[in-house]
Order: sequence, then structure tokens, then C-alpha cells
Amino acid sequence: MNIKNDLLLRAAHGLYTERVPVWLMRQAGRILPEYRAIRERLSGFKELVTTPALAAEVTLQPVHLLHVDAAIIFSDILVIPEAMGLPYDMYESKGPLFVRTISSKNDIDKLNATTAHENLTYVYEAIRTVKKELNGSIPLIGFAGAPWTLLAYMVEGHGSKTFSKAKKFLYTQPQEAHELLEKITTVTIQYLHQQIIAGADIVQIFDSWAGILSPEQYTEFSLKYIAQICKAISTVPVIVFAKGAFFARKQMAETDCSVIGLDWNMDAIESRNIIGHNKTLQGNLDPCVLYASYNEIRKQTQKMIDRFGTQRYIANLGHGVYADTPADNVRCFIDTVKEYSSMKSSFSKTQSFS
Amino acid sequence: MNIKNDLLLRAAHGLYTERVPVWLMRQAGRILPEYRAIRERLSGFKELVTTPALAAEVTLQPVHLLHVDAAIIFSDILVIPEAMGLPYDMYESKGPLFVRTISSKNDIDKLNATTAHENLTYVYEAIRTVKKELNGSIPLIGFAGAPWTLLAYMVEGHGSKTFSKAKKFLYTQPQEAHELLEKITTVTIQYLHQQIIAGADIVQIFDSWAGILSPEQYTEFSLKYIAQICKAISTVPVIVFAKGAFFARKQMAETDCSVIGLDWNMDAIESRNIIGHNKTLQGNLDPCVLYASYNEIRKQTQKMIDRFGTQRYIANLGHGVYADTPADNVRCFIDTVKEYSSMKSSFSKTQSFS
Repeated sequence: MNIKNDLLLRAAHGLYTERVPVWLMRQAGRILPEYRAIRERLSGFKELVTTPALAAEVTLQPVHLLHVDAAIIFSDILVIPEAMGLPYDMYESKGPLFVRTISSKNDIDKLNATTAHENLTYVYEAIRTVKKELNGSIPLIGFAGAPWTLLAYMVEGHGSKTFSKAKKFLYTQPQEAHELLEKITTVTIQYLHQQIIAGADIVQIFDSWAGILSPEQYTEFSLKYIAQICKAISTVPVIVFAKGAFFARKQMAETDCSVIGLDWNMDAIESRNIIGHNKTLQGNLDPCVLYASYNEIRKQTQKMIDRFGTQRYIANLGHGVYADTPADNVRCFIDTVKEYSSMKSSFSKTQSFS
Repeated sequence: MNIKNDLLLRAAHGLYTERVPVWLMRQAGRILPEYRAIRERLSGFKELVTTPALAAEVTLQPVHLLHVDAAIIFSDILVIPEAMGLPYDMYESKGPLFVRTISSKNDIDKLNATTAHENLTYVYEAIRTVKKELNGSIPLIGFAGAPWTLLAYMVEGHGSKTFSKAKKFLYTQPQEAHELLEKITTVTIQYLHQQIIAGADIVQIFDSWAGILSPEQYTEFSLKYIAQICKAISTVPVIVFAKGAFFARKQMAETDCSVIGLDWNMDAIESRNIIGHNKTLQGNLDPCVLYASYNEIRKQTQKMIDRFGTQRYIANLGHGVYADTPADNVRCFIDTVKEYSSMKSSFSKTQSFS
């Protein structure tokens, strides 16, 4: 099916875009009162994730309410560990908590890597529902966590400032770590393939805990597996967002991904120089800018577009939007991207024709 | 008074060192059973900080038990906000909590910036006691938090993953932020001067939350004030450790600091190229390496020294040592630095004479 507004896909493929496409990480979530209303009716976050009709509904909310250029399926990166046999609960205040964790080869051997993706049919069904509702208006983004980030939670058992238990695992049991990462990678590839079959037009890999590894460990324990996933996903573009991995930008450019997501610490021009011109960049406004006045939001958003340019570029924040951000400020960001980049693109087109 | 083992000071001044000096951030603390024994007797962390005899005792513990090449005065970066009129409590599990926070010009006007440093005589007394006990054996490091990191706590009121309230303050009230930063800077300079008068041979500025600012905000709200402090401290060398501020390494090299501390994300060779040869580098082993076997600790420590070289270099971790690190593993790190760098230095001396 042709997609009416395919700006995001064209940007990902390196094709001309008449303006910069824009979406936000965590756009389907607490920033919208309409999301909070649904969430309050439910037993918890996981009910929302595992009920396709509800996941589809909240996926579509920012499409209608914020007019973003792409939907991203509402889900959680930790559904993969759970599908492999490691259940978790999600607590409002504390984040995820795994009932059991991984600490030995025996624990890893017990994990299901062959049919785990079949336990995630609720995600594929949500994708199919969203695709039907979108009716070809804009693309739908599928996603998964990077294998290292999933390992971090599976070994640590919960969120952490340092993930020192997970990092200790890499230093003390590197062979087991690789076995676990291989299993997660296998499941992730199957999972993303199923998302694509269900209708995902592009997929993003979130490496949320990239930035706590040393450059050497990152190459060995994270990038290697991200590269395998990028290689295996050949029918749709892949976005990789590795928060904090400024040191890996050059290597990231050598993978088969189409888009590299940047956090707000990474300078646009320096990143373009490091990465080269064969990848599309995505990002990277500091989420805290959206706490400021409309004037300041416009100023900072325009400056961002001035630095990235209007081509091979997808506007986004440098991290997920914070839950307490006023929805109108998010709208101001989105509208500024659309208006300012349209103006700039048409201006530069005129210029190049003159 | 001449210092017998002045390796750290010579390294800071860019003078020849026959081996690499080594100390650890948080070396005086929970890694030592002898520290925990003292701590358990007390009402809380702050009793330890504000009682000079006890602060001096725990400062000296790693000197005797780990044989580091420098002592660092046991204290807390948040004594400055408290001395300015913003008291805090320290909770074992949750970290610091301020009773009141800063949100307006009125709050800032009420802070004491003229005589605040006089409220910190317990720190100067602890320094004098340590100096007497050290009796010229090794140098003593004084320290303070960077103004931005202190502002972050004073506005946020407690630790945070994102410090979004503090960052919001910078975006929405930049003028007030600068007023507050100026006041903190004034007090910090006076405080460090007093530490030096009391006996500190070198001082370190900890910018623990450097890495959550955008490069532009970092320049405006943090580096500017760090540079002022470095300029004002002219009688002893200044070490700046800005965790996560990889993007500011070039600018950091333009300040009057003598030593730049690196975290474990920052590559030694790349950092040396960015920073040039006029600064000493300090760091940067991943603290999690110290959870590994002695063999692995030796291997990683030697690799670190191979990459930094033996001159204009101070060995350390890339962050404070984690509380649950076995003390014997810390000893293995320290011994490896001493043995391996002695061997390398004498080898390269032989080489250059041949």
C-alpha cells in the first residue's frame, strides 16, 4: 500500500523531502491526557501493552492529537525477555522488576530462543489494527530493545544508575554474556520480522543503556549484535538509537542501518562529519527545551534544523519526551519543525534553481 | 614543607615521573571495612563530614590500607549549598534531600555568598589534622563541586536521573541561573582558597552532572564558572572532572586547569589528541573492571597505561569506586599501576638513552 505522507520513509532512504519529518520518542504516553484517561482505567501498564485494541488506541492518539509524521507502536522493550521465559512486573514509581534474573549458563540455557517470538502475537495484532486505522496516511514504526540493553535488565533485574551487576557479568562471564546476547539477537530478528509482516514500515532499535559501557565493551557486547540485526532486516529501513554512545558513531555508520538517532549531547555538525553522508540522522533536541516558552522552543528547534539541514534528517528529541511536558509545548515543537523546514526547503530549492 | 612522594604533583605540573601516580575517587569510603566500622557508630553521614577528627581518620584510611599516592579530604560537595543557607539531609538509600529548594530570584537573594566559607571551618580543621598526620609523606587533595552540579541539587532538591527541574530552570530562568552560579562560584573560590591555606596541595572540581547538559548549555552554564575557578586558584594545580562532558574536552583544555579527569567512555588516545599536550590526564578505568578477577584487572589496567603512557598522567578510575568493590581488587589495581608503570618508565628511559 502506498503511504500518503511518506516523508519519514523518504528521509530514511536518503530521498528528497520537501520538509523535515517529525515524531517523538514516547509520543504515545503520559504527555497526553487522553492516554492518562485510558491508563487510569486499567490494572497496570502491562495490561495496556498486552491488549492489542488498547495498545492500538494509544498508538493512534498522538497521530490525531499531535499530527506527527509517524506512529510508533505502543509496546515495551521488555516483552522479549518475558517471551523468552523471564517474566517482569512494571511498577509506577520504580520501573520494571524481574521476578528471576540471569546469572549462569544454566539460566541462559533455559531461555526460549526458538519460538519466543510466537508469544508476542499481541504486538503483531496491535500493529495490524493500527495499520488498518492509519489507512495509509503515515508510516508505522516498529521497535525492539538492543540486545545489550535487554541483557542489562535480565541480569540486573531492574533499573539502575550504574547497571554494575550487568557490567560485572560482562567482565566476569564474557562467554555466557555472548551466549545470552546471541539468543536475544535471534529472537529480536524474528520479532522484528513479524512486526514487518504485520505492517511495520520501519523499525527502531533502542539501546537505552549504550552509554554506560566502555567503547571497547560496547563494540564487543552491543554493536556486534545491533549490526547483525541491521543486516538481517533488509526489507524496511532500520533506525538505531544508542543513547550515550557518542564514541561509537563512526562504527555505527559502518552497519547496515539507514538512520542513526542522536541524543542531545551529540553535536549535529560533528556527528555528520563523523558519520558521513550515507546515513540519515535523527534527533536531537534536549527534552527539557519543551519546558520553556513557545518562543524559546521555536528558537531552539529552528537552530536544530539549521544545524542538521533539511535533507537526510528526521526531527525528534534526543530522548523520550518527559511525562510532565505540556502537550501544547510538544505541538509547538512539531509545528515549528513543519513550518520552518518547509520554508527552508522551498528556499533552498529556489536558491538551487536560481 | 617538601612532600616525600610528590608523584601526583609532578604529574600535575607536567614534570617527569618515574612511575604513574594513582589514587581513586571515593577511596575513603564504603570499600574499606575500617570505614564501615566507624560509620556504623555514628548517627549519619553528616556527622562524619562535620566532625574534623573523624573526617581526618577516614581520609587517612586508604593511605595506610591501600597505599595510594594521594589522600583526598573526606567531605561532601553539598556542604557549600548548606553553608550558603540551604540545609540538607543525607539518606542511606535515597541520597541527599534539601529541605528547601531554589526556584526564584528571591530564594537566590537570601543565599549567603559573602561569609558562607566561614561556616566550613570543620573542613579546614580536618585538612589541618590530615596534613599533620601525613607529615609530608604524600599530597592531600582538596575539592569542591562544580557550580552547575551544585545548582542542579539546589534547584532539584535531590538526586535525579534527568535533573529535568534543574535543566528547566536554565531554559526558563537563565538570568536567575547565572546569578545563582555566580554566587556559588564566589563561595567556591573562597572555600578552595581556605582549603589551600589549611594545607590542600592540589584541588579537584567535581562536575558530576556535566553530562546531562547540551554542549551549548554546558558552555554557558558550567564551563564558564569552572574556568573562573581555575583562573582564581593560582597557587596549586586544579583537576577538573566533568563526568559525561566528552563534548567539552577541547574547551576544557583552554581553561587554566592543570589536569583533566576522564570517565571510562572517553578514549585515552582520542582525548589526548583533542586536549593536546599541555594538560595532564587523569582516569579512567571502568569501575566495574574491579569486580573481575585479578588477571582481568591487571590486563585492563596495563592496557589503560599503554594507552595513556606514563607521563602527564594520573591513574584513577573513570568514576568513584563502587561501594561493593572488594578492597583486595582495589589493591590489585593500585599495585598494577605502580609495578607496570615503573617497569614501563624505566624501560622507556633506557630506550631513550640507548
